[in-house]
Amino acid sequence: MTTLRLFSLLLPATLLLLALQLPLLPVVSGSPSDAATARRLVSSNTWGVVSTSSRHLNGTAWGNLLSYSDGPPGAGSGTPYFYLSGLDATLQDLAADARCSLTVSQLGTAAGCATDPEDPTCAKLTLSGRMRPVPDDRLPHARAALFTRHPQMASWPAGHHFEFHYLEITDLFLLDHYGGAVPLTVEEYYAAAGEVAQA
Amino acid sequence: MTTLRLFSLLLPATLLLLALQLPLLPVVSGSPSDAATARRLVSSNTWGVVSTSSRHLNGTAWGNLLSYSDGPPGAGSGTPYFYLSGLDATLQDLAADARCSLTVSQLGTAAGCATDPEDPTCAKLTLSGRMRPVPDDRLPHARAALFTRHPQMASWPAGHHFEFHYLEITDLFLLDHYGGAVPLTVEEYYAAAGEVAQA
Repeated sequence: MTTLRLFSLLLPATLLLLALQLPLLPVVSGSPSDAATARRLVSSNTWGVVSTSSRHLNGTAWGNLLSYSDGPPGAGSGTPYFYLSGLDATLQDLAADARCSLTVSQLGTAAGCATDPEDPTCAKLTLSGRMRPVPDDRLPHARAALFTRHPQMASWPAGHHFEFHYLEITDLFLLDHYGGAVPLTVEEYYAAAGEVAQA
Repeated sequence: MTTLRLFSLLLPATLLLLALQLPLLPVVSGSPSDAATARRLVSSNTWGVVSTSSRHLNGTAWGNLLSYSDGPPGAGSGTPYFYLSGLDATLQDLAADARCSLTVSQLGTAAGCATDPEDPTCAKLTLSGRMRPVPDDRLPHARAALFTRHPQMASWPAGHHFEFHYLEITDLFLLDHYGGAVPLTVEEYYAAAGEVAQA
């Protein structure tokens, strides 16, 4: 059987499957590869900009560059953990309004971008939600996630009262191709395979 | 005259000068070198994260990675110019609330950081204020600033209605050493020599 003949046999079946499946997919949903891209961006960056509503600037949206980690190398969980001090303006903002966003991009990774930073194909991801203190039973996981990828943190001054936090993600915004942003659901994001995402 | 003897002669004079000058300086003011650091960070980065209050997420602070320029290479003005499309969420947010912040850091420059990204000596700067459309008489300046450092912009699709904007800076927040953030005034920032800032 030639490849062409195989193709001509499979094409009608594929079209039928597509016709059956398409109405079942939510229109705004991202594809599995979009979710994997998002997971890869989170796992391969070590820092991002956290946006909060500033207490010092009357609620103006304000960004701070912070270190984070979603897990030890090769074992990203998708959940960004932070090590935050109350001396820092971000945690002061979050005490009044825990809603915030974390913005990362391909520019912060080894891949970088060959295009202009604002070009849609230079992948960008913003995760929004609420910053939460890490509960006791997850502290070992948070510590392992952060201290393996940010070894300097283990020696940061105790007097600054750094505490482990995590971003409880409610919304994701991915832009990685021409044609507009890709809204991803939290379920799609977490369902993406960690192994694939860690590529 | 030995170096030691020279030092012993100059030390009292230096202390006297310090004693005379210190009360004249506002307590929260940044030094000229802080202002120069801020100018250098703005001139040597080509992109940053713009934080806005999101219309799509009920006012949650939201960050977007955008290209900017404060002038052609070697001629930074200190004012960040942007080329924004109404198709982008940032400009949609700004239409409702023009207050925003631009966050840049040493990590986005050739210098990079030898420390952990969150370490205070890895210089970070957040400029806050309002995003404004560039008035007609400054359009040539905005275009030259952006298109020299982002040549790709000249060919971006006309249908996306990109328009020139600038950040009218009202507040600056610089963190570049241990001991806390350095508030800088807008006057100090703009007074820093462009030549020095472009180092």
